[in-house]
Amino acid sequence: MLVDPASRPFVSDQFQAHLIWFDANPMLPGRSYLLRTETDSVSATVTVLKHQLNVDSFVREPAKLLQMNEVGVCNIMTQRPIVFDAYKENRSTGNFIIVDRVSSATVGAGMIDFPLRRADNVHWQALDVDKAARSALKNQKPAVLWLTGLSGSGKSTIANALEALLHTCGKHTYLLDGDNVRHGLNRDLGFTAVDRVENIRRVAEVAKLMADAGLIVICSFISPFRDERRMARELMGEGEFIEIFVDTPLDECARRDPKGLYKKAFAGNIANFTGVSSPYEAPENPELHLKTMGQEPARLALQIEEFLRSRMEEK
Amino acid sequence: MLVDPASRPFVSDQFQAHLIWFDANPMLPGRSYLLRTETDSVSATVTVLKHQLNVDSFVREPAKLLQMNEVGVCNIMTQRPIVFDAYKENRSTGNFIIVDRVSSATVGAGMIDFPLRRADNVHWQALDVDKAARSALKNQKPAVLWLTGLSGSGKSTIANALEALLHTCGKHTYLLDGDNVRHGLNRDLGFTAVDRVENIRRVAEVAKLMADAGLIVICSFISPFRDERRMARELMGEGEFIEIFVDTPLDECARRDPKGLYKKAFAGNIANFTGVSSPYEAPENPELHLKTMGQEPARLALQIEEFLRSRMEEK
Repeated sequence: MLVDPASRPFVSDQFQAHLIWFDANPMLPGRSYLLRTETDSVSATVTVLKHQLNVDSFVREPAKLLQMNEVGVCNIMTQRPIVFDAYKENRSTGNFIIVDRVSSATVGAGMIDFPLRRADNVHWQALDVDKAARSALKNQKPAVLWLTGLSGSGKSTIANALEALLHTCGKHTYLLDGDNVRHGLNRDLGFTAVDRVENIRRVAEVAKLMADAGLIVICSFISPFRDERRMARELMGEGEFIEIFVDTPLDECARRDPKGLYKKAFAGNIANFTGVSSPYEAPENPELHLKTMGQEPARLALQIEEFLRSRMEEK
Repeated sequence: MLVDPASRPFVSDQFQAHLIWFDANPMLPGRSYLLRTETDSVSATVTVLKHQLNVDSFVREPAKLLQMNEVGVCNIMTQRPIVFDAYKENRSTGNFIIVDRVSSATVGAGMIDFPLRRADNVHWQALDVDKAARSALKNQKPAVLWLTGLSGSGKSTIANALEALLHTCGKHTYLLDGDNVRHGLNRDLGFTAVDRVENIRRVAEVAKLMADAGLIVICSFISPFRDERRMARELMGEGEFIEIFVDTPLDECARRDPKGLYKKAFAGNIANFTGVSSPYEAPENPELHLKTMGQEPARLALQIEEFLRSRMEEK
């Protein structure tokens, strides 16, 4: 493309845009979508939803997500830099559509306002000691063991047994547990769909840092949505993400009810409770599918440890 | 206090409240304040500012912070559970004031709306393998080495040299670097005061998790505000937080300008640039004060390593 040197397009992976949402499923900040311009197609997430615009009054209103037909002003980050103009400068190179990565439906459209300067001012710092050096020191292969399943399915119990087992084998592990993380890093988050996405996004980023530190990270989170588990998987290195479906029927979880939560949820006292008032999307191709009925946690932990051992031998 | 069993007060560490701000320094979510009720005094932070109320029109408006005389609706978390009522039920046990932890001035006042259910539904998960077990495995004492200083002061260079040095000594380290974290975990955050506080809060929580994993964590962040560095210190175990002031005069940082940022900042092209358009609050009692002028990074790294060694021998 020939351009006047005085009006070069922007090249950036972060920009502000006006976004119009079409889909019945709301736009959730932090979720990964496909962004298409006239010339490009790239993974993208809304990092910040600044406000929505009331289309009748043009007043800026606080918003956590965008519902169908709502318009919002947001910061968007693409997986790699793209070339664009501001919409007010050029209507064809300043607009984009948003496509759902699962259904391939067009779910939103946007107009780019301007690139964010922060994209230029943050540089990747190359470090001398890397993942390979750290894991060599520990003689282990970093991994992210991601336990997903309903509340009360046995995730924490299995995770705990697994960590004790790996520890006795001299492996260096760390356990990130849903409840514990919510007391610290994610204590500002609740249980709405928006907050669940951000909860998993942050945890996945922390797991990535810990795997980079050479650890075997055990993550125990309900993580009900396929999209976020895929996002977590895509963050990690090849073969590093091991999805483990802790499969216990809802009836059995409700019968055990170790924290008394199902009782409250069925009585209508907890909003957004997975399996009762919020969906659980079961994994389709987990690396390990643990049917827990009639199985001891220690036996299931051993099954995971065996999987890990065979993976060590592969290489 | 005698109460009718039918109208017991709430006991919780999380609640929603209406907050009125008095102080010239704005209220920043994530910052630690002192919360005082008629019967109690406890550290507290605003975890979420939901919206502010326009006091003329009573319209809800989006807000990132509260300026003087502004009213907001927010979620507050206290360091331990406190006893309270809803303000509409009881005016004396349902209100509180907010006190600045440095100046001891009363900076805000609030009325409690209701406790947050999430406080009841998140349980601390006790784990078998703990920090002591993990560090014994590695024969090292976990630590958080917190390098603070201006942009261009040499933090990243020293941190990198230090990590390489510790690695050759067989220590298991991890380096959390400002720019790198902003590409992942904190990519939704900018450089306003609000975002800087949240940036450091999340990083400190991650450093805490990594220290809990038994690692020696090297943190390299401008971290310009005393309040947030103190918050980070208070998160860690006794003696675990080691504040290292990388002290390079502003003139020298601007002369080096490794990323070309000072040039942009002095030209007025970067808002909120520490040392130019945003303050840097130098540490008052850092564990180590490194005057970098005329010193090699490797020499300074060795100085930190010696400090760590003496600390190992203490115990």
